[in-house]
Amino acid sequence: MSRPPGRRQENHKISRELFVLTYGALVAQLCKDYEKDEDVNTCLDQMGYGIGVRLIDDFLARSAVKKCHSYSETVDMIAQVAFKMYLGVTPSVSCNSSAGNEFSLILDKNPLVDFVEELPAERASLCYCNLLCGVIRGALEMVHLAAEVTFLQDRLKGHAVTEIGITFLRKAEERKHKRS
Amino acid sequence: MSRPPGRRQENHKISRELFVLTYGALVAQLCKDYEKDEDVNTCLDQMGYGIGVRLIDDFLARSAVKKCHSYSETVDMIAQVAFKMYLGVTPSVSCNSSAGNEFSLILDKNPLVDFVEELPAERASLCYCNLLCGVIRGALEMVHLAAEVTFLQDRLKGHAVTEIGITFLRKAEERKHKRS
Repeated sequence: MSRPPGRRQENHKISRELFVLTYGALVAQLCKDYEKDEDVNTCLDQMGYGIGVRLIDDFLARSAVKKCHSYSETVDMIAQVAFKMYLGVTPSVSCNSSAGNEFSLILDKNPLVDFVEELPAERASLCYCNLLCGVIRGALEMVHLAAEVTFLQDRLKGHAVTEIGITFLRKAEERKHKRS
Repeated sequence: MSRPPGRRQENHKISRELFVLTYGALVAQLCKDYEKDEDVNTCLDQMGYGIGVRLIDDFLARSAVKKCHSYSETVDMIAQVAFKMYLGVTPSVSCNSSAGNEFSLILDKNPLVDFVEELPAERASLCYCNLLCGVIRGALEMVHLAAEVTFLQDRLKGHAVTEIGITFLRKAEERKHKRS
Protein backbone atom coordinates (compact mmCIF):
# COMPACT_ATOMS: atom_id res chain seq x y z
CA MET A 1 0.00 0.00 0.00
CA SER A 2 2.87 2.37 -0.51
CA ARG A 3 2.48 5.32 -2.84
CA PRO A 4 5.05 6.78 -5.15
CA PRO A 5 7.15 9.46 -3.52
CA GLY A 6 6.50 13.07 -4.41
CA ARG A 7 8.79 15.25 -6.43
CA ARG A 8 12.33 14.58 -5.33
CA GLN A 9 13.72 17.82 -6.59
CA GLU A 10 15.11 19.87 -3.76
CA ASN A 11 13.51 23.18 -2.97
CA HIS A 12 15.22 25.48 -0.51
CA LYS A 13 12.31 27.88 -0.37
CA ILE A 14 9.87 27.45 2.46
CA SER A 15 7.09 29.44 4.09
CA ARG A 16 8.55 31.24 7.04
CA GLU A 17 5.81 30.65 9.65
CA LEU A 18 7.25 27.42 11.06
CA PHE A 19 10.60 29.19 11.42
CA VAL A 20 9.02 32.18 13.14
CA LEU A 21 7.17 29.97 15.62
CA THR A 22 10.26 27.84 16.26
CA TYR A 23 12.23 31.00 16.95
CA GLY A 24 9.54 31.99 19.44
CA ALA A 25 9.95 28.63 21.18
CA LEU A 26 13.70 29.22 21.40
CA VAL A 27 13.27 32.64 22.99
CA ALA A 28 10.66 31.28 25.40
CA GLN A 29 13.05 28.51 26.43
CA LEU A 30 15.86 31.00 27.08
CA CYS A 31 13.47 33.12 29.16
CA LYS A 32 12.83 30.00 31.26
CA ASP A 33 16.58 29.39 31.53
CA TYR A 34 17.70 32.91 32.39
CA GLU A 35 16.05 35.28 34.80
CA LYS A 36 17.75 38.44 33.50
CA ASP A 37 16.83 39.85 30.10
CA GLU A 38 20.48 40.79 29.57
CA ASP A 39 21.48 37.13 29.84
CA VAL A 40 18.82 36.10 27.31
CA ASN A 41 19.99 38.86 24.97
CA THR A 42 23.62 37.76 25.30
CA CYS A 43 22.71 34.15 24.72
CA LEU A 44 20.66 34.99 21.60
CA ASP A 45 23.53 37.10 20.28
CA GLN A 46 26.04 34.29 20.86
CA MET A 47 23.79 31.70 19.24
CA GLY A 48 23.30 34.05 16.31
CA TYR A 49 27.04 34.53 16.01
CA GLY A 50 27.53 30.78 15.69
CA ILE A 51 24.79 30.65 13.06
CA GLY A 52 26.21 33.57 11.07
CA VAL A 53 29.64 31.95 10.99
CA ARG A 54 28.08 28.88 9.35
CA LEU A 55 25.43 30.65 7.25
CA ILE A 56 27.90 32.85 5.37
CA ASP A 57 29.04 29.95 3.16
CA ASP A 58 25.47 29.16 2.20
CA PHE A 59 24.84 32.84 1.52
CA LEU A 60 27.89 33.31 -0.69
CA ALA A 61 27.16 30.11 -2.61
CA ARG A 62 23.46 30.80 -3.08
CA SER A 63 23.63 34.52 -3.81
CA ALA A 64 26.71 34.40 -6.03
CA VAL A 65 27.41 38.02 -5.02
CA LYS A 66 30.69 39.65 -5.89
CA LYS A 67 33.12 41.14 -3.38
CA CYS A 68 31.85 44.37 -1.83
CA HIS A 69 34.16 47.38 -2.05
CA SER A 70 32.71 49.55 0.68
CA TYR A 71 30.84 49.30 3.98
CA SER A 72 27.89 50.89 2.23
CA GLU A 73 27.84 48.20 -0.46
CA THR A 74 28.12 45.52 2.22
CA VAL A 75 25.13 46.85 4.15
CA ASP A 76 23.07 47.08 0.95
CA MET A 77 23.93 43.45 0.30
CA ILE A 78 22.77 42.44 3.78
CA ALA A 79 19.50 44.34 3.34
CA GLN A 80 18.63 43.55 -0.24
CA VAL A 81 20.00 40.06 -0.65
CA ALA A 82 20.47 38.40 2.75
CA PHE A 83 17.34 39.66 4.53
CA LYS A 84 15.29 38.96 1.41
CA MET A 85 16.72 35.46 1.17
CA TYR A 86 16.39 34.37 4.79
CA LEU A 87 13.52 36.47 6.15
CA GLY A 88 11.57 37.46 3.03
CA VAL A 89 11.78 41.20 3.75
CA THR A 90 13.99 44.04 2.55
CA PRO A 91 14.90 46.63 5.18
CA SER A 92 15.73 50.15 4.10
CA VAL A 93 19.28 51.32 4.80
CA SER A 94 20.53 54.60 6.22
CA CYS A 95 24.06 55.80 6.90
CA ASN A 96 24.35 57.42 10.31
CA SER A 97 27.84 58.90 10.45
CA SER A 98 30.01 61.14 8.37
CA ALA A 99 32.83 58.67 8.99
CA GLY A 100 30.82 56.25 6.86
CA ASN A 101 31.07 53.29 9.22
CA GLU A 102 27.68 53.46 10.99
CA PHE A 103 24.55 52.20 9.29
CA SER A 104 21.00 51.25 10.14
CA LEU A 105 18.74 48.57 8.73
CA ILE A 106 15.18 49.78 9.18
CA LEU A 107 12.30 47.33 9.16
CA ASP A 108 8.74 48.63 8.92
CA LYS A 109 7.61 45.11 9.60
CA ASN A 110 9.64 42.43 11.32
CA PRO A 111 8.47 38.96 10.30
CA LEU A 112 10.22 37.34 13.29
CA VAL A 113 7.61 38.86 15.62
CA ASP A 114 4.57 37.92 13.49
CA PHE A 115 3.12 35.80 16.25
CA VAL A 116 4.21 37.99 19.18
CA GLU A 117 1.61 40.38 20.53
CA GLU A 118 3.77 42.21 23.04
CA LEU A 119 6.62 41.56 25.46
CA PRO A 120 5.47 40.62 28.95
CA ALA A 121 5.90 43.47 31.46
CA GLU A 122 8.65 41.59 33.31
CA ARG A 123 10.63 41.19 30.08
CA ALA A 124 10.82 44.84 29.13
CA SER A 125 14.56 44.74 28.37
CA LEU A 126 14.40 41.66 26.17
CA CYS A 127 15.78 42.12 22.66
CA TYR A 128 13.49 39.48 21.21
CA CYS A 129 15.26 39.34 17.84
CA ASN A 130 18.81 39.64 19.15
CA LEU A 131 19.75 36.45 17.31
CA LEU A 132 19.75 38.52 14.11
CA CYS A 133 22.43 40.85 15.48
CA GLY A 134 24.62 37.86 16.24
CA VAL A 135 24.01 36.34 12.79
CA ILE A 136 25.07 39.57 11.07
CA ARG A 137 28.11 39.96 13.33
CA GLY A 138 29.21 36.34 12.78
CA ALA A 139 28.72 36.45 9.02
CA LEU A 140 30.60 39.76 8.70
CA GLU A 141 33.49 38.41 10.75
CA MET A 142 33.88 35.55 8.30
CA VAL A 143 34.45 38.05 5.51
CA HIS A 144 36.99 39.86 7.71
CA LEU A 145 34.74 42.72 8.80
CA ALA A 146 34.52 43.37 12.52
CA ALA A 147 31.29 45.06 13.51
CA GLU A 148 29.07 45.88 16.46
CA VAL A 149 25.46 45.03 15.75
CA THR A 150 22.65 46.04 18.10
CA PHE A 151 18.97 46.93 18.12
CA LEU A 152 18.50 50.71 18.20
CA GLN A 153 14.69 50.65 17.98
CA ASP A 154 12.17 47.85 18.31
CA ARG A 155 8.48 47.95 17.47
CA LEU A 156 7.93 45.38 20.22
CA LYS A 157 9.03 48.12 22.63
CA GLY A 158 6.69 50.71 21.20
CA HIS A 159 9.05 52.35 18.71
CA ALA A 160 7.70 53.30 15.29
CA VAL A 161 10.05 50.96 13.43
CA THR A 162 12.56 48.23 14.14
CA GLU A 163 16.11 49.45 13.58
CA ILE A 164 19.30 47.42 13.67
CA GLY A 165 22.50 49.43 13.97
CA ILE A 166 25.72 48.18 12.38
CA THR A 167 28.99 49.91 13.29
CA PHE A 168 32.03 48.69 11.41
CA LEU A 169 35.14 48.64 13.56
CA ARG A 170 38.60 49.42 12.39
CA LYS A 171 40.46 46.17 11.81
CA ALA A 172 42.73 44.99 14.61
CA GLU A 173 45.71 44.87 12.23
CA GLU A 174 45.16 48.46 11.13
CA ARG A 175 45.08 49.56 14.75
CA LYS A 176 48.25 47.62 15.53
CA HIS A 177 49.95 49.01 12.44
CA LYS A 178 49.00 52.56 13.44
CA ARG A 179 50.31 52.08 16.95
CA SER A 180 53.69 50.76 15.82
CA MET B 1 22.01 59.91 3.25
CA SER B 2 19.05 57.61 3.43
CA ARG B 3 18.19 55.37 0.53
CA PRO B 4 14.76 54.43 -0.69
CA PRO B 5 13.40 51.31 0.92
CA GLY B 6 13.35 48.09 -1.07
CA ARG B 7 10.26 46.38 -2.35
CA ARG B 8 7.67 46.51 0.39
CA GLN B 9 5.59 43.64 -0.93
CA GLU B 10 5.47 40.83 1.57
CA ASN B 11 7.02 37.54 0.64
CA HIS B 12 6.45 34.57 2.91
CA LYS B 13 8.95 32.40 1.08
CA ILE B 14 12.42 32.21 2.54
CA SER B 15 15.50 30.05 2.18
CA ARG B 16 15.41 27.45 4.88
CA GLU B 17 19.04 27.49 6.03
CA LEU B 18 18.59 30.13 8.74
CA PHE B 19 15.66 28.13 10.06
CA VAL B 20 17.64 24.89 10.04
CA LEU B 21 20.54 26.49 11.94
CA THR B 22 18.20 28.17 14.42
CA TYR B 23 16.53 24.83 15.05
CA GLY B 24 19.98 23.39 15.71
CA ALA B 25 20.62 26.13 18.29
CA LEU B 26 17.32 25.26 19.98
CA VAL B 27 18.19 21.56 20.23
CA ALA B 28 21.69 22.41 21.51
CA GLN B 29 20.18 24.65 24.20
CA LEU B 30 17.81 21.90 25.33
CA CYS B 31 20.73 19.47 25.48
CA LYS B 32 22.42 21.94 27.82
CA ASP B 33 19.23 22.22 29.90
CA TYR B 34 18.40 18.52 30.19
CA GLU B 35 20.78 15.72 30.87
CA LYS B 36 18.49 12.92 29.69
CA ASP B 37 17.72 12.52 25.99
CA GLU B 38 14.18 11.52 26.89
CA ASP B 39 13.62 14.90 28.54
CA VAL B 40 14.94 16.74 25.49
CA ASN B 41 12.68 14.63 23.27
CA THR B 42 9.65 15.37 25.45
CA CYS B 43 10.43 19.07 25.51
CA LEU B 44 10.82 19.22 21.72
CA ASP B 45 7.53 17.34 21.30
CA GLN B 46 5.73 19.73 23.64
CA MET B 47 7.18 22.81 21.95
CA GLY B 48 6.18 21.36 18.61
CA TYR B 49 2.66 20.73 19.88
CA GLY B 50 2.30 24.40 20.83
CA ILE B 51 3.61 25.38 17.39
CA GLY B 52 1.25 23.00 15.55
CA VAL B 53 -1.74 24.38 17.42
CA ARG B 54 -0.87 27.86 16.14
CA LEU B 55 0.46 26.87 12.71
CA ILE B 56 -2.74 25.11 11.59
CA ASP B 57 -4.56 28.41 10.98
CA ASP B 58 -1.74 29.64 8.79
CA PHE B 59 -1.71 26.32 6.96
CA LEU B 60 -5.45 26.26 6.28
CA ALA B 61 -5.45 29.89 5.16
CA ARG B 62 -2.40 29.58 2.93
CA SER B 63 -3.08 26.18 1.42
CA ALA B 64 -6.83 26.67 0.91
CA VAL B 65 -7.23 22.90 1.13
CA LYS B 66 -10.67 21.34 1.39
CA LYS B 67 -11.82 19.10 4.22
CA CYS B 68 -10.20 15.65 4.15
CA HIS B 69 -12.56 12.68 4.17
CA SER B 70 -10.18 9.96 5.31
CA TYR B 71 -7.02 9.44 7.34
CA SER B 72 -5.25 8.58 4.12
CA GLU B 73 -6.25 11.87 2.51
CA THR B 74 -5.13 13.72 5.65
CA VAL B 75 -1.68 12.13 5.61
CA ASP B 76 -1.29 12.88 1.91
CA MET B 77 -2.12 16.50 2.68
CA ILE B 78 0.53 16.62 5.42
CA ALA B 79 3.15 15.11 3.09
CA GLN B 80 2.38 16.87 -0.15
CA VAL B 81 1.19 20.27 1.03
CA ALA B 82 2.38 20.92 4.60
CA PHE B 83 5.90 19.44 4.39
CA LYS B 84 6.38 21.07 0.99
CA MET B 85 5.22 24.42 2.36
CA TYR B 86 7.20 24.52 5.59
CA LEU B 87 10.24 22.33 4.93
CA GLY B 88 10.51 22.32 1.13
CA VAL B 89 10.42 18.52 0.85
CA THR B 90 7.73 15.97 0.04
CA PRO B 91 7.94 12.72 2.01
CA SER B 92 6.48 9.58 0.52
CA VAL B 93 3.56 8.03 2.39
CA SER B 94 2.87 4.43 3.30
CA CYS B 95 -0.06 2.88 5.13
CA ASN B 96 1.10 0.39 7.76
CA SER B 97 -2.07 -1.30 9.03
CA SER B 98 -5.06 -3.06 7.61
CA ALA B 99 -7.17 -1.01 10.03
CA GLY B 100 -6.13 1.99 7.97
CA ASN B 101 -5.14 4.21 10.87
CA GLU B 102 -1.34 3.79 10.85
CA PHE B 103 0.79 5.65 8.34
CA SER B 104 4.39 6.57 7.74
CA LEU B 105 5.96 9.66 6.25
CA ILE B 106 9.26 8.62 4.73
CA LEU B 107 11.99 11.16 4.07
CA ASP B 108 14.97 10.21 1.93
CA LYS B 109 16.51 13.48 2.96
CA ASN B 110 15.62 15.47 6.04
CA PRO B 111 16.44 19.16 5.57
CA LEU B 112 16.31 19.81 9.33
CA VAL B 113 19.57 17.90 9.76
CA ASP B 114 21.40 19.57 6.84
CA PHE B 115 24.08 20.97 9.14
CA VAL B 116 24.27 18.00 11.52
CA GLU B 117 27.03 15.51 10.90
CA GLU B 118 26.09 12.95 13.52
CA LEU B 119 24.68 12.75 17.03
CA PRO B 120 27.32 12.80 19.76
CA ALA B 121 27.85 9.37 21.34
CA GLU B 122 26.35 10.52 24.64
CA ARG B 123 23.17 11.63 22.87
CA ALA B 124 22.35 8.35 21.17
CA SER B 125 18.67 8.42 22.20
CA LEU B 126 18.04 11.98 21.07
CA CYS B 127 15.21 12.39 18.56
CA TYR B 128 16.76 15.45 17.00
CA CYS B 129 13.70 16.38 14.94
CA ASN B 130 11.09 15.51 17.57
CA LEU B 131 9.64 19.01 17.25
CA LEU B 132 8.09 17.86 13.95
CA CYS B 133 6.14 15.09 15.71
CA GLY B 134 4.71 17.63 18.12
CA VAL B 135 3.83 20.03 15.30
CA ILE B 136 1.91 17.31 13.43
CA ARG B 137 0.16 16.15 16.62
CA GLY B 138 -0.83 19.69 17.60
CA ALA B 139 -2.07 20.62 14.14
CA LEU B 140 -4.10 17.41 13.81
CA GLU B 141 -5.68 17.96 17.21
CA MET B 142 -6.95 21.35 16.05
CA VAL B 143 -8.85 19.64 13.25
CA HIS B 144 -10.24 17.15 15.79
CA LEU B 145 -7.95 14.27 14.95
CA ALA B 146 -6.14 12.66 17.87
CA ALA B 147 -2.90 10.98 16.83
CA GLU B 148 0.33 9.54 18.16
CA VAL B 149 3.29 10.79 16.16
CA THR B 150 6.79 9.37 16.66
CA PHE B 151 10.03 8.75 14.82
CA LEU B 152 10.25 5.13 13.66
CA GLN B 153 13.55 5.49 11.80
CA ASP B 154 16.13 8.26 11.72
CA ARG B 155 19.06 8.62 9.33
CA LEU B 156 20.93 10.38 12.13
CA LYS B 157 20.83 7.04 13.94
CA GLY B 158 22.14 5.08 10.99
CA HIS B 159 18.81 4.00 9.46
CA ALA B 160 18.45 4.09 5.68
CA VAL B 161 15.67 6.67 5.77
CA THR B 162 13.91 8.96 8.22
CA GLU B 163 10.41 7.71 8.99
CA ILE B 164 7.72 9.44 11.03
CA GLY B 165 4.87 7.21 12.18
CA ILE B 166 1.36 8.63 12.57
CA THR B 167 -1.26 6.51 14.34
CA PHE B 168 -4.73 8.00 14.41
CA LEU B 169 -6.52 7.28 17.66
CA ARG B 170 -10.21 6.69 18.01
CA LYS B 171 -11.85 9.87 19.21
CA ALA B 172 -12.50 10.15 22.93
CA GLU B 173 -16.21 10.73 22.31
CA GLU B 174 -16.47 7.58 20.23
CA ARG B 175 -14.80 5.59 23.00
CA LYS B 176 -17.09 7.08 25.62
CA HIS B 177 -20.14 6.40 23.46
CA LYS B 178 -19.08 2.80 22.96
CA ARG B 179 -18.57 2.26 26.68
CA SER B 180 -21.98 3.64 27.65
